[in-house]
Amino acid sequence: MKIVLLGSGNVATHLGKALSAAGHQILQVYSRTRAHAEVLAEGLGAAAIDHPSEASMDADAYFIVVKDDAIEEVVSQLPRRLKGVVAHTAGSVEMDILKPYLDRYGVFYPLQTFSKTKAISFSAVPIALEAVDATAYGVLEQLADGLSDRVFPCDSKQRLSLHIAAVFACNFTNYLYSVADNVLRSHNLDFSLIRPLVLETAQKVMEHSPRDVQTGPAVRRDRITMAKHAELLSDQEDLRELYLLLSERIDEITHPGTGF
Amino acid sequence: MKIVLLGSGNVATHLGKALSAAGHQILQVYSRTRAHAEVLAEGLGAAAIDHPSEASMDADAYFIVVKDDAIEEVVSQLPRRLKGVVAHTAGSVEMDILKPYLDRYGVFYPLQTFSKTKAISFSAVPIALEAVDATAYGVLEQLADGLSDRVFPCDSKQRLSLHIAAVFACNFTNYLYSVADNVLRSHNLDFSLIRPLVLETAQKVMEHSPRDVQTGPAVRRDRITMAKHAELLSDQEDLRELYLLLSERIDEITHPGTGF
Repeated sequence: MKIVLLGSGNVATHLGKALSAAGHQILQVYSRTRAHAEVLAEGLGAAAIDHPSEASMDADAYFIVVKDDAIEEVVSQLPRRLKGVVAHTAGSVEMDILKPYLDRYGVFYPLQTFSKTKAISFSAVPIALEAVDATAYGVLEQLADGLSDRVFPCDSKQRLSLHIAAVFACNFTNYLYSVADNVLRSHNLDFSLIRPLVLETAQKVMEHSPRDVQTGPAVRRDRITMAKHAELLSDQEDLRELYLLLSERIDEITHPGTGF
Repeated sequence: MKIVLLGSGNVATHLGKALSAAGHQILQVYSRTRAHAEVLAEGLGAAAIDHPSEASMDADAYFIVVKDDAIEEVVSQLPRRLKGVVAHTAGSVEMDILKPYLDRYGVFYPLQTFSKTKAISFSAVPIALEAVDATAYGVLEQLADGLSDRVFPCDSKQRLSLHIAAVFACNFTNYLYSVADNVLRSHNLDFSLIRPLVLETAQKVMEHSPRDVQTGPAVRRDRITMAKHAELLSDQEDLRELYLLLSERIDEITHPGTGF
């Protein structure tokens, strides 16, 4: 298929490369910053454009891969009466934001964290799809099936819940890694010491439900250890508070209805 | 070396197997539950014993691998004047708890989460060592070096901080996976959808510092998305509260001193 990519950040770059590798033709790349569009366009054998209104009328699909609060502006600047399907790629933006401007539209949400420097195998990335009608859905599905083994329909509210789950399982988890790093540093120890534990913890839930593999002082109700930990954290009140809160929450879910 | 294993739980089992595979001879296994001692002893070619007082006088090392609050009792029941080194394996128990009972003692703390069903490659497991003197340290170091590529000295306070870091990076992280599972289920979505994200999040910090790869609405100060998330969580007040607290903390560490 012929594709126009509107955006040039991490997600746009990974998506553009994956679509290109799957045999699709990226016609154009738009970025607010001309230089960024040019770099990505060159890598994809596409043309850089300066404004969404310059988008080709010949594409089968247009991907809006910009910051959430820029989606509506970019869409409003696209040429009228496009025959292709226009899809945004955001977790927490309703599909209907596109409705006033378009007839054929949808959402194409790849659930993964994308880095500038790290390659991603798209085949394992779940892609959540939503579209205004079956025809538009079919186009997005065909594109998604070429990239990923895990393509599924998902309405805007479910997609929002997916994004929330991703914030807990990715962004907040990474924050806890930072806290661990902070605790280790303050005792002259290196974060590399807990890397094997971090990886094993993630690998455990690849096959198990997280509730079934919960370990630690809180699930054992080991109050002596928890008290020692709280005491060592007493000079970092914010961490002590978080330690106690999360311990209490683990106790609640693993011993429901028994009180702390 | 000749080794006596006091304990038969997950850590004792993994440690016993690893020591045996490294060529050491496990003489005896003690457990409060005779049947557990027998199962593990049989697998290791060792004898099961009913009481710590039956421990052989001939061992080079004695590993106390029982619950924290049972360590002192087990040690107090060992025969007097052992020539071998006695080590406990707990993260949050001071070495000096062994002092009243022994001359040659130390701590051998493998930093990993051990499951009943999942094999662990000990070579990547950091082992923190502490000992009363250089001779005892040397014995523990020789044993640890045979199992792991990452053996390091660590005093009791540092070891406590290691354990705290492990609680944040493993136990609390797993709790966040449970929260994600909970959010997904309540919108008829499956936890398997975020497994690739969980793994990628852990893999990212294998090479990077977690602070350098923090992503998400909080670090972008994307208040519109955060408000949407908080609203969808409004019927689960405990999760909404946790969402807002962790978002605030991420904002604080990534934009220090600028206020939320």
